[in-house]
Amino acid sequence: MKPAEAKPPHMDHDTFRSLGHQAIDWIADYWQHLADRPVAPLVEPGTVRAQLPTTPPEYGEDFPALLSDLERIVLPGLLHWQHPRFFGYFPANASGPAVLAELLSAGLGVQGMNWNTSPACTEVEQQMLDWFVHLLGLPEHFRGGGVIQDTASSAVLVALLTALHRASAGRTRDHGTGECGYRVYLTAETHSAARKAAVITGLGLRAVCEVATDADGAMDAADLAARIQADLAAGLTPLMVVATRGTTSDLSFDPLEDIGPVCRRHGVWLHVDAAYAGVAAVCDELHWVNDGVRYADSYCTNPHKWLLTNFDCDLLWVADPEALVNALSVLPAYLRNPASESGRVTDYRHWQVPLGRRFRALKLWSVLRWYGAEGLRSHIRTGVRHARLFADLVREDDRFTLLAPATLGLVTFRHAGSDTDNRNLLHAINAEGTTFLTHSEKNGTFFLRFATGGTHTEDHHVHEAWRAVQNAVQNAVPRAQHATDGTADALNG
Amino acid sequence: MKPAEAKPPHMDHDTFRSLGHQAIDWIADYWQHLADRPVAPLVEPGTVRAQLPTTPPEYGEDFPALLSDLERIVLPGLLHWQHPRFFGYFPANASGPAVLAELLSAGLGVQGMNWNTSPACTEVEQQMLDWFVHLLGLPEHFRGGGVIQDTASSAVLVALLTALHRASAGRTRDHGTGECGYRVYLTAETHSAARKAAVITGLGLRAVCEVATDADGAMDAADLAARIQADLAAGLTPLMVVATRGTTSDLSFDPLEDIGPVCRRHGVWLHVDAAYAGVAAVCDELHWVNDGVRYADSYCTNPHKWLLTNFDCDLLWVADPEALVNALSVLPAYLRNPASESGRVTDYRHWQVPLGRRFRALKLWSVLRWYGAEGLRSHIRTGVRHARLFADLVREDDRFTLLAPATLGLVTFRHAGSDTDNRNLLHAINAEGTTFLTHSEKNGTFFLRFATGGTHTEDHHVHEAWRAVQNAVQNAVPRAQHATDGTADALNG
Repeated sequence: MKPAEAKPPHMDHDTFRSLGHQAIDWIADYWQHLADRPVAPLVEPGTVRAQLPTTPPEYGEDFPALLSDLERIVLPGLLHWQHPRFFGYFPANASGPAVLAELLSAGLGVQGMNWNTSPACTEVEQQMLDWFVHLLGLPEHFRGGGVIQDTASSAVLVALLTALHRASAGRTRDHGTGECGYRVYLTAETHSAARKAAVITGLGLRAVCEVATDADGAMDAADLAARIQADLAAGLTPLMVVATRGTTSDLSFDPLEDIGPVCRRHGVWLHVDAAYAGVAAVCDELHWVNDGVRYADSYCTNPHKWLLTNFDCDLLWVADPEALVNALSVLPAYLRNPASESGRVTDYRHWQVPLGRRFRALKLWSVLRWYGAEGLRSHIRTGVRHARLFADLVREDDRFTLLAPATLGLVTFRHAGSDTDNRNLLHAINAEGTTFLTHSEKNGTFFLRFATGGTHTEDHHVHEAWRAVQNAVQNAVPRAQHATDGTADALNG
Repeated sequence: MKPAEAKPPHMDHDTFRSLGHQAIDWIADYWQHLADRPVAPLVEPGTVRAQLPTTPPEYGEDFPALLSDLERIVLPGLLHWQHPRFFGYFPANASGPAVLAELLSAGLGVQGMNWNTSPACTEVEQQMLDWFVHLLGLPEHFRGGGVIQDTASSAVLVALLTALHRASAGRTRDHGTGECGYRVYLTAETHSAARKAAVITGLGLRAVCEVATDADGAMDAADLAARIQADLAAGLTPLMVVATRGTTSDLSFDPLEDIGPVCRRHGVWLHVDAAYAGVAAVCDELHWVNDGVRYADSYCTNPHKWLLTNFDCDLLWVADPEALVNALSVLPAYLRNPASESGRVTDYRHWQVPLGRRFRALKLWSVLRWYGAEGLRSHIRTGVRHARLFADLVREDDRFTLLAPATLGLVTFRHAGSDTDNRNLLHAINAEGTTFLTHSEKNGTFFLRFATGGTHTEDHHVHEAWRAVQNAVQNAVPRAQHATDGTADALNG
């Protein structure tokens, strides 16, 4: 139909302008009316796919057709993470300045794998990471050692590879992890990414040693010390402790002030995962989230959770970037260049698993400039205030028990009924559409999680969510169960 | 100065509209006038950083200030990958429909780690990957086994982890790679990512066996068979062959029709890296790039290189997704959900290293619908035509030699002078600013690479680039060297 030499139908610049304005308006409309939508989708597996053609179009079509299918097919199939009454998981909040910077980054379309493949891409990133050392009050030994990773999963993987390289004096890079007897210490509450990193690096899950926790779920430093001693006695090699400042399940904080000295004593790498909570340290009164980080060999936190920077944007710092580069660098001829060989530049490709990298620092720069440090503090404080507000509402209802005081932006609670009642309750809450919560378990007991921090969330959304929880109780839980049975208190015992 | 309870200065929806239009127009202006800029930056290390404040702003400022600093500080520090006379590396081309979809994805801000965290995010991705099986004529055993990765580096890593899991019958997941004697076969031309994957997985570089290549740089299947035999005789375990369809350095193609049967005979996992070239199979006459892929256990190609989909977007298929999931899944309570437990859905978090994931399938959907299959073919054909045009110009100048016929979108060539002359020539070309080329080496001899495929590149840009090369010869290479000395021919001998 079309001749073989037809010019590709690239979008001309004026069309890009006009469709781009439409796309911007589409997002603004989406955000503006998001509160009117159910938060969670009610779709069966396969429903979305069934509405898509089985083969791609042979000829192009106009962009508005995509926008219309987004509306018709995609939106009903999404869980709306930016919804003001989304209180599930942890937030993955976007913001105007972040989204616009993501757009600009896509338009620039540069690669930051080497310094010389776009110097500004590397240098803005270095500066932003140093800005965050200042903003979060991180130890000075992290200055110059920061890099953006996609997620905290990649951060712990990169940290573990570096720890292996250092502990083996470079041997693992050539000879593999072998029957080395390396040990990685964590707790039942440590993010699954740490176990996954043990699998990926070839250590295997048997290298993972689960340290005991106290009643709050925090790592027991005495047990850690004992396990390290026992492993040493057994001829094993303590390699890394993965400590968490703010666990995913219920925000327990491993005591770095106690763990750090144990690590120091045995030369064990201390990686600190503060993916969710670390950014809260922008506020003076929340600096405690990073207490003891001065002992860390590596540390990560995610602006893409609570700090208004759309996914992906995890910040990783290592105290010894040279070890990181040595652990991960493999250098082909086509990437050699005088700048790298001068030793005067940073080539971030050696700091990560992938080779290519986007200009993600632009998002941080844009967010920091739009909000300023004070604006970020104000956003974090709003999230904390919303959590306290919700916790107060829970506390006033004697059918419910709080599992812990609401610190930061997470409330953990459960209904007085059985686990099954609580599961049914969660299902009923989410199916109704007003709000969306998630769950977790502690000592085998099911509980509900309410996580604040949404960009567009205001006080009335918290109240609306609580009313939705109360309404769901009427429908989901047998009346006989509408009184506290003490199970939740027992959890904290 | 501001009260503690101040509301965060979120960007209101109308401001987002107006600033968003500005950002769109900024990109359109950037693309429109890109040809007037030097392609490569002339900055010394540290120049960009030196222009940024040493600490973040305490209070927010208006967005146009960022746009103005982008113009003033960042643009002079970028290598402009979207420039119509950018012919370096391989392209990483963006396009209007892809950038708009990236924007929409950022605005939606959903997470696709599990099916239930946004069903449409997973299902659109599954459909797009199946569309690409059709588009590229991939074997049917890849249908339903596709996933988007960030890069081909992550793709080969995930494939290697799956191969390890399968070969060890699940043992490595728990017990690590140990002193297992696994062997990974590749050539000197295989992308460095494969060696990096061997390091990351704990096999170490000693597990890597470099197979001989023929004069064109393609893997010698007979040598592969001999090495596998020798390894077996030595008690080692052949694990994976990483074969490349279109190497980064100079587009050699490993003969899958010969390699495949060797792999089959010994139960060795065959991973095919077609990062750059694979997408060319959208054109019937270029289907040969994927010849022999029916033998592959895993295969990847990157729409984010030549196929108008801005980075990152690598497509990976595995023939046995169950093995992949078993290799990588680690399941915490807070991510358990009825949909996953029903076995009726795909949770892509098990298909990758990170946990979180963006809605990248939206970019593919947008690109496919805007261009249609015919539009994509036309773009690939334009790139091939530009390479042939440039090769013709090189061929007509007896100071230069082509290293290979221009297949696809890469021309490899060198000046008749010494390696130093060629290095100086490349430096002179790139310093002048009209165009940007990169280099590589073959058998220790330096050569220049000219890679087409830019979204905005037209015939006249190719002519302008060639004139820039010719002009640079006058300045960079001593007159005595201006005649062929046969070195380049020797390379092909």
